Amino acid sequence: MNDNIAVNIEQIGIIKTPYEDKAPFQPIDNDKEEFYIIINEQYRDGLKKLKTFKYIYIIYYLNQIKIEKKMLISPPWAEKKEIGVFASRSPMRPNQIGLSIVKIKKIIDNRIYTSGLDVFNNTPLLDIKPYIKDLDNKTDANNGWVSELNDDGHLALHINGIPHNY
Amino acid sequence: MNDNIAVNIEQIGIIKTPYEDKAPFQPIDNDKEEFYIIINEQYRDGLKKLKTFKYIYIIYYLNQIKIEKKMLISPPWAEKKEIGVFASRSPMRPNQIGLSIVKIKKIIDNRIYTSGLDVFNNTPLLDIKPYIKDLDNKTDANNGWVSELNDDGHLALHINGIPHNY
Repeated sequence: MNDNIAVNIEQIGIIKTPYEDKAPFQPIDNDKEEFYIIINEQYRDGLKKLKTFKYIYIIYYLNQIKIEKKMLISPPWAEKKEIGVFASRSPMRPNQIGLSIVKIKKIIDNRIYTSGLDVFNNTPLLDIKPYIKDLDNKTDANNGWVSELNDDGHLALHINGIPHNY
Repeated sequence: MNDNIAVNIEQIGIIKTPYEDKAPFQPIDNDKEEFYIIINEQYRDGLKKLKTFKYIYIIYYLNQIKIEKKMLISPPWAEKKEIGVFASRSPMRPNQIGLSIVKIKKIIDNRIYTSGLDVFNNTPLLDIKPYIKDLDNKTDANNGWVSELNDDGHLALHINGIPHNY
């Protein structure tokens, strides 16, 4: 139906995390300086005034996902549910674009130290955008199919990235 | 410093809007069925359970931006401010990736009817993700440098996409 348009997107930086072979489903925060983004030197000026924001969106390329792409997935924490990839944050999606919201801790030169980020070490960065409260804080949003799960408490641990053993 | 990784991202659908040559700075909502997304047929199953969400993120390719990319920009509604592209939602960014949050009105086959979207007609779609309240609704977020502007009321009109003549 559509003639697809050529998409020209490239890596503009790199995300550093402690996760070499597995990452949590959602970010875990801590007080160490384990999570930071290095933006390529030529883009450094683009960070001006970024630190006036408390939260930012990080858009990245999930290049370490080698598994087969499927249209229907079952989240590891909700195995009985079969949902469409677009109704999920699963990395197994047609375009391996990841989106996370992180807190800015500090910015030094071209390094942005952040709260926990649920990605592998050396994940390629594609974009950074400010999370603007008046625009992005949808107070009347919902949790969609996630609310249908019986085990809300357990799920909350995953969503909030709180480590637990069960 | 980094060896950049090849990024393989392609169009997966198309965004339909009434905007052929100019778009508002931020989406305008209305009751007509003027805004919809057509997802390519092969991805249709990926929409399963998407309609359980009130809001979704739309990630798209700003292919109609031909202007020079700059690291510092001045928003049209805040001309005296010079800010980094990454501290803005300006389309003039290193990677022309757009991000908007829209309300789902209805989904019919592979068409998602949405609230207003501030993009040109026929903008290529790259991804759809659910806006999950427990994850994305950051109640302690701020408005960053936007709060430094004196003309908060005027700005609010732009942020909320309300048409006005001054």
